[in-house]
Amino acid sequence: MMKIDVLTLFPEMFEGVFGHSILKKAAENEAVTYNVVNFREYADNKHKTVDDYPYGGGAGMVLKPQPIFDAVEGIRSSSGTSPRVILLCPQGERYTQKKAEELAEADHLIFVCGHYEGYDERIREHVVTDEISIGDFVLTGGELGAMVVIDSVVRLLSGVLGNEESHMKDSFSTGFLEHPHYTRPADFRGFKVPEVLMSGNHRLVEEWRAKESLRRTYLRRPDLLEEAELTKDQQKWLDEIKKEDK
Amino acid sequence: MMKIDVLTLFPEMFEGVFGHSILKKAAENEAVTYNVVNFREYADNKHKTVDDYPYGGGAGMVLKPQPIFDAVEGIRSSSGTSPRVILLCPQGERYTQKKAEELAEADHLIFVCGHYEGYDERIREHVVTDEISIGDFVLTGGELGAMVVIDSVVRLLSGVLGNEESHMKDSFSTGFLEHPHYTRPADFRGFKVPEVLMSGNHRLVEEWRAKESLRRTYLRRPDLLEEAELTKDQQKWLDEIKKEDK
Repeated sequence: MMKIDVLTLFPEMFEGVFGHSILKKAAENEAVTYNVVNFREYADNKHKTVDDYPYGGGAGMVLKPQPIFDAVEGIRSSSGTSPRVILLCPQGERYTQKKAEELAEADHLIFVCGHYEGYDERIREHVVTDEISIGDFVLTGGELGAMVVIDSVVRLLSGVLGNEESHMKDSFSTGFLEHPHYTRPADFRGFKVPEVLMSGNHRLVEEWRAKESLRRTYLRRPDLLEEAELTKDQQKWLDEIKKEDK
Repeated sequence: MMKIDVLTLFPEMFEGVFGHSILKKAAENEAVTYNVVNFREYADNKHKTVDDYPYGGGAGMVLKPQPIFDAVEGIRSSSGTSPRVILLCPQGERYTQKKAEELAEADHLIFVCGHYEGYDERIREHVVTDEISIGDFVLTGGELGAMVVIDSVVRLLSGVLGNEESHMKDSFSTGFLEHPHYTRPADFRGFKVPEVLMSGNHRLVEEWRAKESLRRTYLRRPDLLEEAELTKDQQKWLDEIKKEDK
């Protein structure tokens, strides 16, 4: 069972996300346990202060090393594990599905979420094992980034996704974007489902899907094609798509 | 005041995030209103079904067009606005700070969050105005992506961030990653704060910070440097950093 601890000043932010849908089911099925800790509890000063002014001046506050060091060490010694300690921050390594797969192999993850404060550099250097950024945009804190990483990791754990969900072909795991999907009705307000999908011809359906998956990738994410090794069929379709796009 | 509607099958997931910290304060200060709608309420069939099997076969369910069309149209006609309708999906445009700034100019945003189901293509073609992906990883649903986008947009709205927070120099808004931060104590378990930050020499502190910001960008995100226009000082520091890195 994977153990996940989250250090945050806003533990209530996690309730809705851990308490519903697949993350909840994963805990009920004992694939994972969540433990959300307000690291203010670890502050060793009378006023339970966790941040202070930056050396060198300037606006903004900086998270002190002591509460985070002590929280991580407290968790580590009571669990007897060697957890990955993950800091969410814009300076981190860009998060990808490959990293999700790597983290899903671990038995214990600790997430450190600062809010709008900066982190004292010594936290990065001496406590944290992985700095992760979910993208080139600025959030009010690390909490949402932690939720994103946890969601993408937990869904990979054995037994978490039912048949229905897991059989959806994930974008990225195939290297291409997903083809379009259609369901009933065949005609919705005059917008029709492509004939081939209703033909009952399995081979033609598969071909259409493979080609449309390639088309979407070509039009929206040509960078993914650069890394892909195309089959002979795929290369032929791609040539057709390029002609059709002109 | 910005109006934000969210269409989801898991409305409770949003409570913790909208109900705390800066997103909560923004609503209290009337910079934004949130309205989370379970789009199952809009299903026009007896069993309130929102998904169905895919045409052409295969595993996985597909969200039907009717509930989403009707929900978006219901919201649009009661608000009398022309909202951006944003679909969170791995096939979407990669989300960036620039897109956050663009969305922050809108007066009404509707977010459409599917869960592990696919979306009927007609939803993308005829209702949605923006398809957004927060990154190349797979989540169990669009809810976390919507929260990420909302958080990054709302913090940009006028009056939402206090002085303290807004004066932190954001990564990405400067084009470089942030320099390291330090706060008290000057010596924590033998790990010391760089002397220069305690020197009281404002010019040297600023130089150190600018150079370290450049160093971090060079070491971690060299791609950002390719787009940056460097000053003469920055070019000199970069040359020094490259030498030091060897």
